[in-house]
Amino acid sequence: MKYVRQFGGGSAEGRAKDKALLGGKGANLAEMASLGLPVPPGFTITTEVCRIVMERGEGQYPDGLRDEVAQALAKVEELTQTKFGDASSPLLVSVRSGAPASMPGMMDTILNLGLNDTTVAALTTRSKNERFAWDCYRRFVAMYGDVVLGMKPESEDADDPFDAILDDIKHKHKANRDQDLSAAALREVVAAFKAKVQEHTGKPFPDDVHEQLWGAIGAVFRSWNNPRADVYRKMNNIPATMGTAVNVQAMVFGNLGDDCATGVAFTRNPATGTAELYGEFLTNAQGEDVVAGIRTPEPIAELAKRLPDAHQELVRVAKLLEDHFRDMQDLEFTIQNSRLYMLQTRNGKRTGKAMVKVAVDMVGEGKLTPRDAVLRIDPAKLDEVLHPTIDPKARPQPVAKGLPASPGAAIGKVVFTASAAAEWAQKGETVLLVRTDTSPEDIHGMKAAAGILTARGGMTSHAAVVARGMGKCCITSCTSLRVDAPKKTASFVGGGKEIKLKEGDVLTLDGSTGEVFVGSAPLVPAQLGAELGTLMEWVDQFRRLRVRTNADTPTDARTARSFGAEGIGLCRTEHMFFQPERILAVREMIVANDEAGRRAALAKILPMQREDFVELFRVMAELPVTIRLLDPPLHEFLPHTQAEIEEVARDTGKSAAHIAAKVSELTEANPMLGHRGCRLAITYPEIYEIQVQAIGEAAAQCAREGLLVKPEIMIPIVMVPEELRRLRELCTKAMTKALGGVPIPFTIGTMIELPRACVVADRIAQHADFFSFGTNDLTQTTFGLSRDDAGRFLPSYIEQGVLPSDPFAVLDPDGVGALIELGVRGGRSTKPGLKVGSCGEHGGEPSSVEFCHRAGFDYVSCSPFRVPIARVAAARAALAEESDKP
Amino acid sequence: MKYVRQFGGGSAEGRAKDKALLGGKGANLAEMASLGLPVPPGFTITTEVCRIVMERGEGQYPDGLRDEVAQALAKVEELTQTKFGDASSPLLVSVRSGAPASMPGMMDTILNLGLNDTTVAALTTRSKNERFAWDCYRRFVAMYGDVVLGMKPESEDADDPFDAILDDIKHKHKANRDQDLSAAALREVVAAFKAKVQEHTGKPFPDDVHEQLWGAIGAVFRSWNNPRADVYRKMNNIPATMGTAVNVQAMVFGNLGDDCATGVAFTRNPATGTAELYGEFLTNAQGEDVVAGIRTPEPIAELAKRLPDAHQELVRVAKLLEDHFRDMQDLEFTIQNSRLYMLQTRNGKRTGKAMVKVAVDMVGEGKLTPRDAVLRIDPAKLDEVLHPTIDPKARPQPVAKGLPASPGAAIGKVVFTASAAAEWAQKGETVLLVRTDTSPEDIHGMKAAAGILTARGGMTSHAAVVARGMGKCCITSCTSLRVDAPKKTASFVGGGKEIKLKEGDVLTLDGSTGEVFVGSAPLVPAQLGAELGTLMEWVDQFRRLRVRTNADTPTDARTARSFGAEGIGLCRTEHMFFQPERILAVREMIVANDEAGRRAALAKILPMQREDFVELFRVMAELPVTIRLLDPPLHEFLPHTQAEIEEVARDTGKSAAHIAAKVSELTEANPMLGHRGCRLAITYPEIYEIQVQAIGEAAAQCAREGLLVKPEIMIPIVMVPEELRRLRELCTKAMTKALGGVPIPFTIGTMIELPRACVVADRIAQHADFFSFGTNDLTQTTFGLSRDDAGRFLPSYIEQGVLPSDPFAVLDPDGVGALIELGVRGGRSTKPGLKVGSCGEHGGEPSSVEFCHRAGFDYVSCSPFRVPIARVAAARAALAEESDKP
Repeated sequence: MKYVRQFGGGSAEGRAKDKALLGGKGANLAEMASLGLPVPPGFTITTEVCRIVMERGEGQYPDGLRDEVAQALAKVEELTQTKFGDASSPLLVSVRSGAPASMPGMMDTILNLGLNDTTVAALTTRSKNERFAWDCYRRFVAMYGDVVLGMKPESEDADDPFDAILDDIKHKHKANRDQDLSAAALREVVAAFKAKVQEHTGKPFPDDVHEQLWGAIGAVFRSWNNPRADVYRKMNNIPATMGTAVNVQAMVFGNLGDDCATGVAFTRNPATGTAELYGEFLTNAQGEDVVAGIRTPEPIAELAKRLPDAHQELVRVAKLLEDHFRDMQDLEFTIQNSRLYMLQTRNGKRTGKAMVKVAVDMVGEGKLTPRDAVLRIDPAKLDEVLHPTIDPKARPQPVAKGLPASPGAAIGKVVFTASAAAEWAQKGETVLLVRTDTSPEDIHGMKAAAGILTARGGMTSHAAVVARGMGKCCITSCTSLRVDAPKKTASFVGGGKEIKLKEGDVLTLDGSTGEVFVGSAPLVPAQLGAELGTLMEWVDQFRRLRVRTNADTPTDARTARSFGAEGIGLCRTEHMFFQPERILAVREMIVANDEAGRRAALAKILPMQREDFVELFRVMAELPVTIRLLDPPLHEFLPHTQAEIEEVARDTGKSAAHIAAKVSELTEANPMLGHRGCRLAITYPEIYEIQVQAIGEAAAQCAREGLLVKPEIMIPIVMVPEELRRLRELCTKAMTKALGGVPIPFTIGTMIELPRACVVADRIAQHADFFSFGTNDLTQTTFGLSRDDAGRFLPSYIEQGVLPSDPFAVLDPDGVGALIELGVRGGRSTKPGLKVGSCGEHGGEPSSVEFCHRAGFDYVSCSPFRVPIARVAAARAALAEESDKP
Repeated sequence: MKYVRQFGGGSAEGRAKDKALLGGKGANLAEMASLGLPVPPGFTITTEVCRIVMERGEGQYPDGLRDEVAQALAKVEELTQTKFGDASSPLLVSVRSGAPASMPGMMDTILNLGLNDTTVAALTTRSKNERFAWDCYRRFVAMYGDVVLGMKPESEDADDPFDAILDDIKHKHKANRDQDLSAAALREVVAAFKAKVQEHTGKPFPDDVHEQLWGAIGAVFRSWNNPRADVYRKMNNIPATMGTAVNVQAMVFGNLGDDCATGVAFTRNPATGTAELYGEFLTNAQGEDVVAGIRTPEPIAELAKRLPDAHQELVRVAKLLEDHFRDMQDLEFTIQNSRLYMLQTRNGKRTGKAMVKVAVDMVGEGKLTPRDAVLRIDPAKLDEVLHPTIDPKARPQPVAKGLPASPGAAIGKVVFTASAAAEWAQKGETVLLVRTDTSPEDIHGMKAAAGILTARGGMTSHAAVVARGMGKCCITSCTSLRVDAPKKTASFVGGGKEIKLKEGDVLTLDGSTGEVFVGSAPLVPAQLGAELGTLMEWVDQFRRLRVRTNADTPTDARTARSFGAEGIGLCRTEHMFFQPERILAVREMIVANDEAGRRAALAKILPMQREDFVELFRVMAELPVTIRLLDPPLHEFLPHTQAEIEEVARDTGKSAAHIAAKVSELTEANPMLGHRGCRLAITYPEIYEIQVQAIGEAAAQCAREGLLVKPEIMIPIVMVPEELRRLRELCTKAMTKALGGVPIPFTIGTMIELPRACVVADRIAQHADFFSFGTNDLTQTTFGLSRDDAGRFLPSYIEQGVLPSDPFAVLDPDGVGALIELGVRGGRSTKPGLKVGSCGEHGGEPSSVEFCHRAGFDYVSCSPFRVPIARVAAARAALAEESDKP
């Protein structure tokens, strides 16, 4: 019934909670007005009107809206003692959009509305500043022309017709800057602008202030559906049906003289979280001058000297607002003739470090409970706290962009092969490994590098997964990158330009944004403060879900344990196979002609694997360690170049032709769907047998040392229950034999990573002590999407809004999630207490962790540097569930 | 309560319907006895006893069993006027297994039981044939030793201890054959056998006939769980809990003199179906002599001359049994002293041709209804009727074996490249294309060849699918085959031997068995008799499911229509792209740098595609034609060899390096999960736009010619509803424009071939007029199994019983089927009348067709030569459903 809500003069028809109806800006203006804060009066036309207009068509407003607007305008006139369109005391207003969800800069705004040839004279008189009045007028005409009359250039590259006119007149008056134009010149500008409007629209510029107002209101509503806003909404999952509100508010001016100013402030330092009023201002200026950066703004502390009363008032208001909203606020203010006006308040964006410090400090100040503090944490932002970052104050222009596969920043000299990376690192150089793609054979190079950049692969490609495991910065799917490794060159191609790179050139990678910079950008190191420790203690009190880590080496395991990992959820035994002294034995096994040959080679691998497991068990004493048996297709281990083939031939005593034939025989059309995982063990049982022997002997050795070990054996890629039944039998036998009577309880479970496994989970559960959902492979098979190849079209899918996000980064709840729920239900229908976890990279992504919590998982497992993120996400999921309860 | 059922003497405690309790053999013996037929009396110990023993343990028989057996034995004694173990009129019995499901040769049998040193003398007296009596005795001791006393050698290669003794004694007596041994020599054999038993078991051979009997009964029950039977059951989906019955039956002898005989007979000719008593016999012989093939048996007609009374009786019994069972019977009989005894009757195995003729003839004879006749047809066996086959009478020894990918037989000279196949065929040679694998570029060679043999690929590999479409014999996954195409040689390697082949050598392929023969084997051509036409008329009256065909060419479509296809369910437009004059334009499109370049190339393809569609619409006038838009990844169309690359470079005016770079850029790690299907159209919409334009213009042209066309546009690989929403919009627009006002109704649907599509089918259905389940790809993604690579391990999975069958040949009901049901339910929850079909190769496999019927599909689509099979399977499914109704 009521489409317009008033605010100002110490009261308001709405509060902060009314964001759905009033939009974020309108709701917070109403809240500030209700709190008696100095807000220029105004009114909000509700989002309901936007929805009605979308349904009925442009300009088809509901009955009574015009009356309500007229009444609200009258109230503003009364409070400001001005009159809209009046020849002596004219009211000027701003008309701004304000949606329930933040959509910064996506929609349109018009300032100084209400000016015409009559009111501009009154403004001159009242401000005693003719230049000011005409400057406002020319800005208004241009803004109105652009936004309301459709004269905005279609592409960002095209010229704005008003800018062209302004440039001409500046040239004519030999004025370098806008502010060098006199009042007379600005009159000339206004006249030329109006002529342009007449030429473009065939009608004169509207002098009637009410026509101006309704034109602006219509344009703001229209801007809700502009393509830019549409794309933004799709990317951020904001429903198009939500609509925007329109805020009409009396103008105040920070540019009426030296007792005027305009600025922005944060109630705490948004970079560090320190409790201090932080921000900047310009005297005698309008808001857009601060943004334009023509004059350098002064730090907020200076305001105390320039305008001490207004500063004191700002400090008071800032504290009041922070206390009121119980969060750090981001404020916009204007000071007109020494009087402070608040134009906006909202929760302030902050770095990960500030996020943690503010939340923990506010608990100390008694403003938040630990529960509130945890709910305030954006788990994804913790990444920043755990990795070095590029100094936000000195960020250069990027030359290329890929997927932010592993966060943190790295600077180094580029090399194009793993062996070059290892060599250069040996010589003390910091290097970045730049590849078309990485494979397991590049691991030593990745270890040696400070960061990794690849042209292909997605968020869960080999490079990405390994880099995250190492806590190392990585950018994948950098599509403009072309690498010519043999020539030791690379280039970034795009927009008709090419930037060439040769070995040794310096790049900076920002793994948190996916941006690549030429040369060396300044870094800020990771600083884990005491606040993080406090926060994580609270987190652990709230969460139900356990958090383990994916770790293949003692170093990874140690890092993860220091980050609070509660065990290993995935140890990929194959990663242990790639070390130079082992790969030969592995290759011997693969090229063997029969079981005896394979066993001979496996016998060489056995003691090495045993030693690996001993170390892992030591690091993870008292905690469970899930070891996945061999998973990748055998040809991944084979040599590929002629030189490598000849080496293997020499070492195995076979002919190079024989080795080459074997390589070709094992090459698969779709290795992801090929002879791998437990399929290898169905055909060559001895492989798993020896791996389990190594696990058992290692466990027994550690137990004899007095350590508590909890081995869990995990079988990958099970598609039919019979596979698991057989392999469980084989593993039980091998394990029992290897333990040699040492009483160590062990469990045998399976990965659920194929759609079929989800569907027949009830029958698979008969042979499993636990399920671990392999969400990477499950996403691949559910979507029919190879993560190695998706880089070619997935970015365009996300950009176009066909997919809301990369399903390899954010678990897809509708498809993959539905299959997981089916699998959990099936498994627990057979074994009610079945332990369920996940070990895909999703285990470190907050929304995916929340999904796992809701689906009743016992644990998630993720790379070491994501463990704290998963812990926070798990706690938030538990708290959200609590508050969902009636 | 009653564990033993009597039969013989004109009555029986059971009938043919009691197979579950009495086993197949026991139930049919009871049936024959009840009919008053001459069956040697005996009794059956029920399968329930087997189940009890399995639960309680060996020898733990239920209370009362021994009494029941004793009573039953007494009845047999009474009927035969003999006595078990008697010194003058001893009863001899056979002890045989007999499970409810046919498990030929999997379990054990003991004959001549009841012989010992006393009874053998009585047998001598009664038979007046000492040699006969001792021959029976020595056979019994050996059989008993093997089966009951565990002296059977463990492996088939090892020597039987009794054979060794027999050989020694034959050598000593200078006897070449068993029958050359005198009675005295046979006594010696028996003594030696018994000594061996004593040596092996530490106990004398049991003389007590009751001990013999219970030993044999126990052994038969035990044999239910022998490894051979276990594997057979797993392969044939026979539950292990079913159990076997044991049949104890009085012995009759066909080897007591010239008025004795033994033989087998079919009530009709099992090869042709002709109504004639067909079979063979040996006079003065035992059943095993017929099998051993030492003497050549005589055709059954000769029996009329030798033993006219017995022959007359056999003719009478055969007719009676066939009429009674209303099916062709396979009989075993023995004639003892001119008297006929029936030992077994069962439904006779027959060729596809005989199957059809017998069923149709019996309807004509008033014995069956058309409904019965259809239920008697094994749809899979129709293959034989539709393709030429190797003469079963002159089948040589195969040199290799692969998967029977497309049935029929072919003889030809081998060539190793598609172009060689085309060249040789041009010269009038019949060739077989022998490849490691085929790709779409080999199509012209496959067309030219009479048969295809590949080393790789499964039942639905490219070679298999295309060959079946062409109705051409094909064997895939012939793992012993090594092809060296550049050298124009190949070889079959295995068992330490190598058989070499060079271009032009002759092979014979049997696509129905997967066997490969060197040289030319005699063939029998396909003969489609009038009976098949009659049968198919009945079939079409019963079925609800419609049957369409997968066809890409007018020839295929015409063949399919002649086989009764009711439309095209899948036309793969990409197959049209590979013709030499087109591939160049396709390659131009792929290597184009921008949309304009792609459009220019597509403009060249447009008229060719339009012409394709015009022809298809003409052949399929009045029937629906589903056209799938481009599906495979683009790189499949690219050149691969240096020569091809240079050709494309010349033709497109680009550098060879540029083309090579493009090829490398487009190469995917897992093309099956890559940039293909509708993903191509999301990134390059113009491809589908032009394809739809071709469809629309072709439809309009045909309509103007007065033809009724029913185009259906199908979008492949949809994973999220938004893909289909966009592409539906694009296709609708393009189609409407292309039709230019000609009023042709068209529909737009999607393939459901990814697990995710099944899960979110309700939302996909919002944008679809029909669903077509792509069961090939759905099987790949559900199992995480590439059909191109599965050949390496899938055969071993099936052999070991880990999988019951090849899921690419037989639809997996538990996994893939469950997802399909989910998809149908989801789709119809949104659109209750949604048309649902399938277009995977499973559409021609009987059990899969039955699944589709049960799941509520509207149609299945399969390759042309499988259309009749699918029609029969559909009718059977409908009839089965009817009889399931209460």
